Amino acid sequence: MKKHNFSAGPCILPQSVLKQASEAVENFNGLDLSLIEISHRSADFVAVMEKARKLVLELMNLEGKGYSVLFLQGGASLEFLMVPYNLMSIGGKAAYLDTGTWSSKAIKEARILGEVEIMASSKDSNYSYIPKDYVVPSGVDYVHCTSNNTIFGTQMKEFPKTEAPLICDMSSDIFSRELDFSRFDLIYAGAQKNMGPAGTTLVVVKDEILGKTGREIPSMLDYKVHISKDSMYNTPSVFAVYVSMLTLDWLKSLGGIKEIERRNVEKARLLYDEIDRNPLFRGAAATEDRSDMNVTFLLTDDSRKQEFDALCKAKGINGINGHRSVGGYRASIYNAMPLESVAVLVDIMKSL
Amino acid sequence: MKKHNFSAGPCILPQSVLKQASEAVENFNGLDLSLIEISHRSADFVAVMEKARKLVLELMNLEGKGYSVLFLQGGASLEFLMVPYNLMSIGGKAAYLDTGTWSSKAIKEARILGEVEIMASSKDSNYSYIPKDYVVPSGVDYVHCTSNNTIFGTQMKEFPKTEAPLICDMSSDIFSRELDFSRFDLIYAGAQKNMGPAGTTLVVVKDEILGKTGREIPSMLDYKVHISKDSMYNTPSVFAVYVSMLTLDWLKSLGGIKEIERRNVEKARLLYDEIDRNPLFRGAAATEDRSDMNVTFLLTDDSRKQEFDALCKAKGINGINGHRSVGGYRASIYNAMPLESVAVLVDIMKSL
Repeated sequence: MKKHNFSAGPCILPQSVLKQASEAVENFNGLDLSLIEISHRSADFVAVMEKARKLVLELMNLEGKGYSVLFLQGGASLEFLMVPYNLMSIGGKAAYLDTGTWSSKAIKEARILGEVEIMASSKDSNYSYIPKDYVVPSGVDYVHCTSNNTIFGTQMKEFPKTEAPLICDMSSDIFSRELDFSRFDLIYAGAQKNMGPAGTTLVVVKDEILGKTGREIPSMLDYKVHISKDSMYNTPSVFAVYVSMLTLDWLKSLGGIKEIERRNVEKARLLYDEIDRNPLFRGAAATEDRSDMNVTFLLTDDSRKQEFDALCKAKGINGINGHRSVGGYRASIYNAMPLESVAVLVDIMKSL
Repeated sequence: MKKHNFSAGPCILPQSVLKQASEAVENFNGLDLSLIEISHRSADFVAVMEKARKLVLELMNLEGKGYSVLFLQGGASLEFLMVPYNLMSIGGKAAYLDTGTWSSKAIKEARILGEVEIMASSKDSNYSYIPKDYVVPSGVDYVHCTSNNTIFGTQMKEFPKTEAPLICDMSSDIFSRELDFSRFDLIYAGAQKNMGPAGTTLVVVKDEILGKTGREIPSMLDYKVHISKDSMYNTPSVFAVYVSMLTLDWLKSLGGIKEIERRNVEKARLLYDEIDRNPLFRGAAATEDRSDMNVTFLLTDDSRKQEFDALCKAKGINGINGHRSVGGYRASIYNAMPLESVAVLVDIMKSL
């Protein structure tokens, strides 16, 4: 049965990418060897890593602007630690915007290495909105925010204005919409939403912000070490980097971020329009902060839950249970999700 | 052409595993979804993680002996930091055996967090042997060693006797030979030799040694955090864990470590016998410390290099160039390498 995969992450990837990835595990580049049994230092894999890095800069329009691209391990959760290790001066302070579970976790790790000023938080309303009227403090080592909140279904439409380096966790909406990426000094993202499978983490960092804290940084946590070794200080997550490269190449081939944003807006509008029209549903997030990636919604009449769930199951809808912190439903409609799958879900909602 | 993959890592994996992995990337468990697009919290993937953990304890004969099994990210290189973070007391000291490049890197990271006493080092002879007559100091927080040195082709046959927790980096020979694994308190290994593809790291740790330093440990570096979340504190490297599970299952099905050790000894003997017999070759490592995983050897007459290389290429021999620190050749003959491939190499050597 055709499945419609609304999983929040790891999540849907383009079918053509899955096919190429599957083939490479049996025979990579016609080498008569598997992708996962060749040396990461072989010419064939070095070319993959280089192409992946180049595609990132190209898609973000950051070529020649002083940024390095890294493919690391550990997920965004390890970046929560690496960011302060590399950017927080000894006795220093950073400003964080608290917009959800992942922001909170980032704040927790930063506090191990210095002082954190929380500019604003929407925790008191279970993170259902993005705080807007906050003051960005001056004199901080950096300012940190989370562009999209997977669990709560909110997305930042504006970013803090600051003289300090601006750091953004874009794990769940990277490559989904046009932004002036050069406004950010460091962007990081776990691969497993719009970029590839779980197992690698993208870091895009402006070189000039590094090396200024005087702090002794362990090798594996030091961006400069990874930059100097082209993300091969130790063995990278070969398969995850390869599939990320394929996914970035797929995105480029269909017209880049501009075109995918058009598609993403169309998908999100289709679903939110039905949520707003149908009295049986209501959105979980503040309307103006709704995410185009993770659509959170609730039934207004819980007695219809069984019926709705059964229809979803019958039509091959997968992965729309809401996170336990919000309840209800969450339809994740990342880049690779086709409009047709969203239409299947909307048709079920209309039928109720 | 049939390739004989002597790559040092990432390296050869069983053909049956590669086939299953390739299939799962297209359609996993008959779900009509790819392995890499389902949630890591789905029942299907949780079962993979649990089976992988169980297989590790079973193969090592550590069931019911107070050990936890983790599948983390970051490779052994991140363990170089996590070990002291979790085990070095504040103002404490640890003892390290320096047997090669990876030992040295482990020592470098440990020194960030405390004092390191090097019990012995073979650096002065380019790590061509394993030091033996050393004193294990008392009063240290732990004792650290590296069981197999991929680059230099040496392997520890005896391990330090100590009252302190014994920690071992087994990245390049784990699951290759019978050992009393219960003598070790923490074993770690990057997957990409005998266990699976690059992208996950195995940690087997005796629970009772943790939580004793009073040190504040960042979440992602804290073994207790990962244990409490069954290796799912954050999204694990799904593909790498799955392929590791398949490889461990393959090992169990052919008779476990006892049987693979028999095969490994047979392969190593075949190759070393030819190195010792043929005046054109000599081994790079001290005879008594030779590794059964990485066979390092040199030509005694460099004018024959082109001829040897050409014959290897013609017969599909892949990945036997020596590491730049040793030169010559390195044939890595990990668990999944068939005797037949070693015989192809030996036949070429005989023909010279």
